[in-house]
Amino acid sequence: MSENLRIDGASRIYPIIGDPISQVKSPAGMTAAFAARGVNAVVVPIHTSVDDVDDFIRTAGRTENVDGIIVTIPHKFVALTHCSTATERARITDSINVLSRNPDGTWHGEIFDGLGMLGGIRSQGGEPSGKKTLLVGAGGAGIAIAQALLEAGVRELAIHDVDINRRDHVITRMREFYRERVHVGSDDPAGFELVVNATPMGMRPEHPFPVQIERLSPDTFVACVITAPAVSPWLAAAREKGCRGSGGVDMYTAEQELMLQFFLNSIPTA
Amino acid sequence: MSENLRIDGASRIYPIIGDPISQVKSPAGMTAAFAARGVNAVVVPIHTSVDDVDDFIRTAGRTENVDGIIVTIPHKFVALTHCSTATERARITDSINVLSRNPDGTWHGEIFDGLGMLGGIRSQGGEPSGKKTLLVGAGGAGIAIAQALLEAGVRELAIHDVDINRRDHVITRMREFYRERVHVGSDDPAGFELVVNATPMGMRPEHPFPVQIERLSPDTFVACVITAPAVSPWLAAAREKGCRGSGGVDMYTAEQELMLQFFLNSIPTA
Repeated sequence: MSENLRIDGASRIYPIIGDPISQVKSPAGMTAAFAARGVNAVVVPIHTSVDDVDDFIRTAGRTENVDGIIVTIPHKFVALTHCSTATERARITDSINVLSRNPDGTWHGEIFDGLGMLGGIRSQGGEPSGKKTLLVGAGGAGIAIAQALLEAGVRELAIHDVDINRRDHVITRMREFYRERVHVGSDDPAGFELVVNATPMGMRPEHPFPVQIERLSPDTFVACVITAPAVSPWLAAAREKGCRGSGGVDMYTAEQELMLQFFLNSIPTA
Repeated sequence: MSENLRIDGASRIYPIIGDPISQVKSPAGMTAAFAARGVNAVVVPIHTSVDDVDDFIRTAGRTENVDGIIVTIPHKFVALTHCSTATERARITDSINVLSRNPDGTWHGEIFDGLGMLGGIRSQGGEPSGKKTLLVGAGGAGIAIAQALLEAGVRELAIHDVDINRRDHVITRMREFYRERVHVGSDDPAGFELVVNATPMGMRPEHPFPVQIERLSPDTFVACVITAPAVSPWLAAAREKGCRGSGGVDMYTAEQELMLQFFLNSIPTA
């Protein structure tokens, strides 16, 4: 990943904040992507706790060579409270994963987790529009993916989570904006044209799968957020049944490109 | 400078703080030096103002992957106030340019500007010990160089600055620790074995020189803090007279190596 990487006193800085942080891919991947476009900018990992994240974002806001921030777990919700402006998408999901500067120096928020999933699905030949869709997982990634799928025009969205409170929170929130297209789902994928896993289930062979694999039709497109392994056990099992599908790496690749464009479009013209 | 450079989620972070910041060399040079030793650490430029520097240092102190801070103009004095411990050298000069972590996470301060000058002089065959020395410039670099020259055993140190208050402040401070070896100097270098310029004078051909060049003996060793141009006009004139000398690049090279060792020695063994 070291090709073209550079850092010097004139580098523009994009912290990525999370707890933990060592697992994140953006410092290597996005810094290389900036360099490939000739932009002298570096994505810097910052390991900051929930107690300190507010101070960090405020301090970064007053740091003249910080042009944006990437936000990962567990700071995606609190980060929105630091934004003077945010997209409708961010307000619906009530969370963000990127902040860029408004012309007056305040923060503008956007969430790309759901759009990244859409991009990943499309990169493997899938298309959510018009599809009867099952989403498993109603956590931070799940809510962003639910919003993006609904925005992209899925015919209906059934949402399943073993945590019923979490599931109902997302369903209630999505119904405020997308009404009767949103339903309660289960782990039975029968009859769905698109099945999306937004949980860590199926990361390891001993994990239960997010859906009953024996009830999955070969016509169903399956998508998964898991990046390690690149092909999760349940995705492999679905492909063995004949399903087309996309993995977490496809999602991450699409999301990184979207974040890059977002930051490039907001670079101050000073 | 891009050979071996890398950044990823596990990179340890060393901010360099200053205002302005784009001119600093450490992000490229020290990051490459870390990489050459197999250390996954990145020196990140942070442009922070005098109004915000206290908040920045406090926030960095609570950021788990920040192992040290490099401090440049104008923050070298205030940074010392954030240190729980500091070297005698730092306490005498009342300023620091590096902070490292104590085992309990608090900051330890050290100043390498003067030691860097010593290293630069020695790298070009000079030796301050026992020498009758003239120092021109009593600013932030000047006080650190004065202390280091006295610590290194110059026979006497005459200090000159066009700003008499600044000059007298440094002389008074140095006399507290080094007594009668410290005197008032002038721009006349006659009779001195070592002449050190710690001012920007002589950066450009139209600048006045820091000392009367026609009064300089070919036996005098001359040293200069100016890094751009690498050979400042007054240093070139002194060399033309037959003087040996060292420039700001020699100082910077030595200082970087000292800072690197300082940080490598204080990396947590966790």
